[in-house]
Amino acid sequence: MRCRATLAYDGTAYHGFQRQANASPTIQGSVEAALAEIAGRPVGVIGAGRTDAGVHATGQVIAFDLDWRHPLSDLRNALNAFLPADIAVRVVDEAAAGFHPRYNALSREYKYAIYVAPVRDPLRRWRAWHLTQSLDDGAIAEAVRLIVGTYDFSAFGKPPQGENAVRTVYEARWKCPLPGEHHFTIRANAFLFRMVRTLVGTLVWVGQQRVTAAQFEGILSDRERGNAGPPAPPYGLVLTGVQYDDRAGDSRSDEEFGR
Amino acid sequence: MRCRATLAYDGTAYHGFQRQANASPTIQGSVEAALAEIAGRPVGVIGAGRTDAGVHATGQVIAFDLDWRHPLSDLRNALNAFLPADIAVRVVDEAAAGFHPRYNALSREYKYAIYVAPVRDPLRRWRAWHLTQSLDDGAIAEAVRLIVGTYDFSAFGKPPQGENAVRTVYEARWKCPLPGEHHFTIRANAFLFRMVRTLVGTLVWVGQQRVTAAQFEGILSDRERGNAGPPAPPYGLVLTGVQYDDRAGDSRSDEEFGR
Repeated sequence: MRCRATLAYDGTAYHGFQRQANASPTIQGSVEAALAEIAGRPVGVIGAGRTDAGVHATGQVIAFDLDWRHPLSDLRNALNAFLPADIAVRVVDEAAAGFHPRYNALSREYKYAIYVAPVRDPLRRWRAWHLTQSLDDGAIAEAVRLIVGTYDFSAFGKPPQGENAVRTVYEARWKCPLPGEHHFTIRANAFLFRMVRTLVGTLVWVGQQRVTAAQFEGILSDRERGNAGPPAPPYGLVLTGVQYDDRAGDSRSDEEFGR
Repeated sequence: MRCRATLAYDGTAYHGFQRQANASPTIQGSVEAALAEIAGRPVGVIGAGRTDAGVHATGQVIAFDLDWRHPLSDLRNALNAFLPADIAVRVVDEAAAGFHPRYNALSREYKYAIYVAPVRDPLRRWRAWHLTQSLDDGAIAEAVRLIVGTYDFSAFGKPPQGENAVRTVYEARWKCPLPGEHHFTIRANAFLFRMVRTLVGTLVWVGQQRVTAAQFEGILSDRERGNAGPPAPPYGLVLTGVQYDDRAGDSRSDEEFGR
């Protein structure tokens, strides 16, 4: 049976999602180890997004094949019993036989959290980027509007080998739910390597008035990676959801966690 | 000069606030080490509350003596430069020469966070207690009203040697800001060892209808530690503030962190 599962994880202790020959632990490797305990044999896992080391998820989507004759909520519970406490399976569904979480994904959604305060908040050390200098939210919002649409995003990241850097951003928002709190959300058909973090790093330049929104537009259109800002730190970033046609792989709302 | 400072910390990696002969690191030991770097000699620190291992703070108050001829915000910044990332000094003030953060405190305030969800949330692993069974908030609120006032709280904790167990709870509230989210806040003149966590553990019994609010009242009045519930885990607890007469040691609002 082809299974689709939604994962949440704290990426702090991991070398990213993808299994690697010479870096461990990884999210993929940990989920494969839990599945092997259940299946009694190796089970391969495919993920929708290759989150970097330190990046979190509330809506990563994975697929794997497994014979399972009990309710799928029992499989979810069994996986959670074998997984470490910083990874959780939120839901397991049956998927079509050929379901591929990366190729079938219509879009991915990320959220980046920043706070501005004179002193760091130890309780958000691995959750949000701390800045001491205030940000011009109006200027940032202007720049954010410029990235919605289909563009060559070479300035903000590297495509996989043999691919071009054209991506379509469906939605991008800069919100300030409270004074000093800044949340960037973005949904696109796909992302280049480090694209969200590099966009955030460059938007912070705009917010700090080191570049204008017009100059930001020039960075985008010049397509030179050297012109953009440094990537924002990984710990502020969360993969919040992956969208599919049939809705069965949609990101779950945070209500499932009681938030 | 007598200094009063407000501390925030993530208690996950610490053996509690208080320096100990055979357990390290502690919050007190870490702050003393940072002060020693600045002063070039040992500097003793006194804290308002002895938070347990794994318990957090946003409003712990400490006092120490130091010669300092620059702005106090420079002292705060110097301390934060020497402190590990999971401890931060939010503010440093000058205090009266005899100021003692524990003896002079009028009250202490704690907050405990619980969430009810079918699956754990890895991103709140060290921040909130995860329960899968729903809670009867009405019954809990009824029990919470019974602890406001002056009582012998022997059922819920141990006093320091030579002290009685009478404490005055000024305020106690059970809030549900969102479905599945449960926040307990309590302010008292002082607390017994593990009192807040044992109250929460017993209130959860009420919420799970294992004991009624009337039976909770009996547990309180019988003053037998064995009748109460097990202490809730430390990681859901935060010391949010300590109140003093002159207001200079009041807990700072969370706005300072931009929340």
